[in-house]
Amino acid sequence: MVTKQQAAEAVRHAKAVTGVTWEQLAEAIGRPLVWTTAALLGQHPMSKDEAATAAALLELGDDVALAFQLQPTRGGLESAVPVDPTIYRLYEIVQVYGPAIKELIHEQCGDGIMSAINFRLDVKRVPDPAGDRVVITLDGKYLPYQW
Amino acid sequence: MVTKQQAAEAVRHAKAVTGVTWEQLAEAIGRPLVWTTAALLGQHPMSKDEAATAAALLELGDDVALAFQLQPTRGGLESAVPVDPTIYRLYEIVQVYGPAIKELIHEQCGDGIMSAINFRLDVKRVPDPAGDRVVITLDGKYLPYQW
Amino acid sequence: MVTKQQAAEAVRHAKAVTGVTWEQLAEAIGRPLVWTTAALLGQHPMSKDEAATAAALLELGDDVALAFQLQPTRGGLESAVPVDPTIYRLYEIVQVYGPAIKELIHEQCGDGIMSAINFRLDVKRVPDPAGDRVVITLDGKYLPYQW
Amino acid sequence: MVTKQQAAEAVRHAKAVTGVTWEQLAEAIGRPLVWTTAALLGQHPMSKDEAATAAALLELGDDVALAFQLQPTRGGLESAVPVDPTIYRLYEIVQVYGPAIKELIHEQCGDGIMSAINFRLDVKRVPDPAGDRVVITLDGKYLPYQW
Amino acid sequence: MVTKQQAAEAVRHAKAVTGVTWEQLAEAIGRPLVWTTAALLGQHPMSKDEAATAAALLELGDDVALAFQLQPTRGGLESAVPVDPTIYRLYEIVQVYGPAIKELIHEQCGDGIMSAINFRLDVKRVPDPAGDRVVITLDGKYLPYQW
Amino acid sequence: MVTKQQAAEAVRHAKAVTGVTWEQLAEAIGRPLVWTTAALLGQHPMSKDEAATAAALLELGDDVALAFQLQPTRGGLESAVPVDPTIYRLYEIVQVYGPAIKELIHEQCGDGIMSAINFRLDVKRVPDPAGDRVVITLDGKYLPYQW
Amino acid sequence: MVTKQQAAEAVRHAKAVTGVTWEQLAEAIGRPLVWTTAALLGQHPMSKDEAATAAALLELGDDVALAFQLQPTRGGLESAVPVDPTIYRLYEIVQVYGPAIKELIHEQCGDGIMSAINFRLDVKRVPDPAGDRVVITLDGKYLPYQW
Amino acid sequence: MVTKQQAAEAVRHAKAVTGVTWEQLAEAIGRPLVWTTAALLGQHPMSKDEAATAAALLELGDDVALAFQLQPTRGGLESAVPVDPTIYRLYEIVQVYGPAIKELIHEQCGDGIMSAINFRLDVKRVPDPAGDRVVITLDGKYLPYQW
Amino acid sequence: MVTKQQAAEAVRHAKAVTGVTWEQLAEAIGRPLVWTTAALLGQHPMSKDEAATAAALLELGDDVALAFQLQPTRGGLESAVPVDPTIYRLYEIVQVYGPAIKELIHEQCGDGIMSAINFRLDVKRVPDPAGDRVVITLDGKYLPYQW
Amino acid sequence: MVTKQQAAEAVRHAKAVTGVTWEQLAEAIGRPLVWTTAALLGQHPMSKDEAATAAALLELGDDVALAFQLQPTRGGLESAVPVDPTIYRLYEIVQVYGPAIKELIHEQCGDGIMSAINFRLDVKRVPDPAGDRVVITLDGKYLPYQW
Repeated sequence: MVTKQQAAEAVRHAKAVTGVTWEQLAEAIGRPLVWTTAALLGQHPMSKDEAATAAALLELGDDVALAFQLQPTRGGLESAVPVDPTIYRLYEIVQVYGPAIKELIHEQCGDGIMSAINFRLDVKRVPDPAGDRVVITLDGKYLPYQW
Repeated sequence: MVTKQQAAEAVRHAKAVTGVTWEQLAEAIGRPLVWTTAALLGQHPMSKDEAATAAALLELGDDVALAFQLQPTRGGLESAVPVDPTIYRLYEIVQVYGPAIKELIHEQCGDGIMSAINFRLDVKRVPDPAGDRVVITLDGKYLPYQW
Repeated sequence: MVTKQQAAEAVRHAKAVTGVTWEQLAEAIGRPLVWTTAALLGQHPMSKDEAATAAALLELGDDVALAFQLQPTRGGLESAVPVDPTIYRLYEIVQVYGPAIKELIHEQCGDGIMSAINFRLDVKRVPDPAGDRVVITLDGKYLPYQW
Repeated sequence: MVTKQQAAEAVRHAKAVTGVTWEQLAEAIGRPLVWTTAALLGQHPMSKDEAATAAALLELGDDVALAFQLQPTRGGLESAVPVDPTIYRLYEIVQVYGPAIKELIHEQCGDGIMSAINFRLDVKRVPDPAGDRVVITLDGKYLPYQW
Repeated sequence: MVTKQQAAEAVRHAKAVTGVTWEQLAEAIGRPLVWTTAALLGQHPMSKDEAATAAALLELGDDVALAFQLQPTRGGLESAVPVDPTIYRLYEIVQVYGPAIKELIHEQCGDGIMSAINFRLDVKRVPDPAGDRVVITLDGKYLPYQW
Repeated sequence: MVTKQQAAEAVRHAKAVTGVTWEQLAEAIGRPLVWTTAALLGQHPMSKDEAATAAALLELGDDVALAFQLQPTRGGLESAVPVDPTIYRLYEIVQVYGPAIKELIHEQCGDGIMSAINFRLDVKRVPDPAGDRVVITLDGKYLPYQW
Repeated sequence: MVTKQQAAEAVRHAKAVTGVTWEQLAEAIGRPLVWTTAALLGQHPMSKDEAATAAALLELGDDVALAFQLQPTRGGLESAVPVDPTIYRLYEIVQVYGPAIKELIHEQCGDGIMSAINFRLDVKRVPDPAGDRVVITLDGKYLPYQW
Repeated sequence: MVTKQQAAEAVRHAKAVTGVTWEQLAEAIGRPLVWTTAALLGQHPMSKDEAATAAALLELGDDVALAFQLQPTRGGLESAVPVDPTIYRLYEIVQVYGPAIKELIHEQCGDGIMSAINFRLDVKRVPDPAGDRVVITLDGKYLPYQW
Repeated sequence: MVTKQQAAEAVRHAKAVTGVTWEQLAEAIGRPLVWTTAALLGQHPMSKDEAATAAALLELGDDVALAFQLQPTRGGLESAVPVDPTIYRLYEIVQVYGPAIKELIHEQCGDGIMSAINFRLDVKRVPDPAGDRVVITLDGKYLPYQW
Repeated sequence: MVTKQQAAEAVRHAKAVTGVTWEQLAEAIGRPLVWTTAALLGQHPMSKDEAATAAALLELGDDVALAFQLQPTRGGLESAVPVDPTIYRLYEIVQVYGPAIKELIHEQCGDGIMSAINFRLDVKRVPDPAGDRVVITLDGKYLPYQW
């Protein structure tokens, strides 16, 4: 009986041992890169086939493959405010720009939100002579408050 | 003596009264839309000219214009975990996708972060037949851990 | 310059003085009961007409009516866990039944959520010989996780 | 010696392995759907028969069946504010509509609460051409403050 | 416009100035001692007559009397864990004896709670040669979990 | 090496298996009911004889009996604000009535506290035609602030 | 209407203006030094005479003198963990030595506590060739757990 | 591999089994009583000889003796605000008297602190006809703020 | 009656209006740069002369100058974990390097601390062809644990 | 499968057993002292060679060496505010001097931060006749806010 969290740790370890990349895992199962990474870290349920393919590539067992298919209880941070610097910068952006983003969603679309469910996300390294950049695109359906 | 926070509230009120938009404010001072919005909400310092232009457009006084120029103590959320649904979705994305983004930054770039200082942000409404979308682009310089 | 929170306090006070009910307010502006109550407590923006009608009925001024129209920063609890017993029982229901509701949404609909944005809510007193009951109906669109 | 929490994890795992549904479990023990789900997640004590029936269907042992019968220490969230999006929406509803619900209970019934003890709850998928809906009904006895 | 909290502070101050006791206030309005004290501290709504009588005795104005009648948002502690030693001891009793009380309610009554709504409370000084005692009686209706 | 907390869990389990009641345990060791319950849940140290008697009745081993005798580090709640509804109602009473109790202790006795150390507690089911009641009596020595 | 907290701030300010010391205040009212300091900071109620004497020496008005006499809601820290370094060291001592002190109270006295109510405290500067020392004596009645 | 925390638990258990006292342990290793107790609870590192002597007296193994010698990460409370009543009283003293102690350190010594590093502590039972007392002496070097 | 916190805000405002720098303020009063800045932000008490000089330079009144001389209750962050990015980086350094610094202090000096009281701090911009650097030097007396 | 945290504990234990110093470890792998210490405590990833060298010197196995190479999730404190006195002093410095450091970075460099990523840190014992000092140098690249 392997939990999704134990499975996520097993994935991280197996990647270090086998050298398999997230890129390769995403290609193998035929899903977008961020979706695959999040799923293997326990944030999305996989189909039976996807789970089997990923487990095989990572040389992990059937119990881990079963865990990949379980419905997750989502939420991947160890504390309400993340401590790891790479993740913290995302939180800092919410702190510094959150209210501005809210104002602009309301100005451009009206009273509503950007969905985090009907949502896709991309992470890319973009070459730049002044130093390469990380570009993260959040792309969610606009949902108006609707009674 | 007007604080940046009081100035931000004055801006919100003045927008409701005058009908001036963030778009118009950004154009008037010649700065990107999100930067301008964040600045007027107290998250960036403005130059004297920018402050004067914005205050004039919003029909606000010199004391508010002075507040626009002060160096901010940044951080715009009222609690560690934001409560407003439009802002909360951003936090939820950090919860659900934060660890995956971290993995991919490390896989694509190495051991480092996406800067939130050498950083720009865009918010756009994108038409879509299945329902328009909000697309937010986070674009920060990659900073490797470097001793 | 009246904030939405000050407006909400003014509403509560004016109701005590004038004896106007939430029911009457909802009828006057032609909106559902819970929507109207939430809006006057600062959780939804009103149209100019709705705001004027409600303010007039409550004998409140133009500055309060303007506050009714402002875009809210939502969230009406004074602490993360509500302390007032009438509201706490709702939180207790999330504590005791939240995980069960989650399981059933997933079993009946798949991997997704009940929207709290495309959402309506009703509160009714239902006569019952064993003691009248309060029946609260939460009715939100099902949103599947969709990349 | 199996705790109710370990039993709940065993149930989730056994459901994935056996494919038994909450619906089938509720029918087998002859109890309402939400009650059964909550009980098997550790929030209600079961009778000896109910526990035996459920354990048998899930192919779980006597020690788990014993755990089903223990008096629970209720509370199913891992942190005060739930992080999983499906559950968080329920919390968000308390944040946004909690004070309005309180006002309406008081207007319709007087100074009191909706009981969360003498209480039943239903979760249903309701077909809708604009997208199916999840309808959750909270139905609790009105309890007046009574000295 | 006086809030219930401001009214409670006014009561404390007026008692110090006028020397009126909680006992006298309870007698004047014809209500139990603890109920009256809690009500004047903002935890229960008073009838118009009760409010007028109490305000008159304390030499407080009509705005305070109106506040006495408002529906309270209950909760009288300034932090989740009370700091004042006299109140803290009550919290300590919940910490040390709470689980034992829970076990005994379940053993004596079944799966349910002592209501804090259909509830009365008494505080008495009881003479004792080994040092007088404070006896606090919590008396609430037993409410069984009942679907 | 069994901790007091592990011993408490063993007691709960053994009660379920053997059917022994708190009442029987209290009688067997000749101590008040609440004291015995609290002690076996790890909140009071037992004498060697009391521990042996209780362990024998519950069919538990010597290592558990030793744990019963250890000096406790008291405090039986899993979080600062209890989540279980039966225990939460006690916390709610402190929230709603704590300041009133404080006022009355000061009015009746002076500046001091009700001791939670020189203290006894009783829990009783009291028959009542309108529904039986749970009556909890807190009885502590009055301790005046004394320099 | 002056609160005890406002009175405490007034005392600090008046000491700076008048140059009166805590020592002089304690002598004037005939009470121990720490008691007097704590009382004027809002942690103990003063008699009418003591309040009048202290207020006169500090050149403060009758409203402040009245505040000195009010029953305090005790607790003088601005956050659960104190931030000021002089006060923090006391907290650090509880962190580092608290469990050891507990063990020794139990070894020397049995199962009980050092009272913080029947309690006195002294602060003294003690000359020492290796650098003067601050000696703080906590002296409280031993209270055994006693049912 | 035994951690200092595991070693502390082993000490508490061994004391119960062997009946060895803190007093005896302190004498055996030739160190002050409170120092020895704190050290064996994991708050100070011991020399190799001290560790061996203590371990022998408590009939504990070499791995525990090694743990006694490790440099501690200090801090012995399980939560920021201690819950155990014997330890809580120390915290309560900081809450009620902390600001007064700060004022007196500043009045007697100037702007600085009582060191918690160059520091000793004593706990004594002092006979008293009105009930024995616990006297705790905190004795730390005065450290002036010094640039 | 001006508090140290109000004085600090007045300083920030006066600097913006007058254009006086921290450098000029430090030179005028003849104190190190960081000390002066911290003092004017309310973290150190100033002498009467220093306060008068600083107030004059900033064109602030006598009440502010008096506030500069008051003994501070130190602690300049608005929440336990700072939110402003410039300050947060310091906190991040404690998170990432704190345990390593601890290990090295113990290896180089023994069991003790770097004093934050007998302590000085410097902030300097250091030109660097790869981008200028900020160099912050923490320089505190080593204090060994000493009984 | 060894986590970085388990590896860090293994390092601490191995150092105690083998007597190897951080200094020796840093020399052996040819990296700065603080970097090496932080890396072995789990805050930086090591190269395969560095990991092998360190593991060999500490007589630790291949699984620990593998853990040294894993990408860390950084953050080494057990609670948001550190409790260990040696580490707490660093936090105290942020509390007392954080806002002053922020002001001076802005005055000397403009609106930006000291990077904690492009960053090096040194810890040194500096002999001083008045008592040796610990000097910690934080040296990070200045990063201006740059859109």
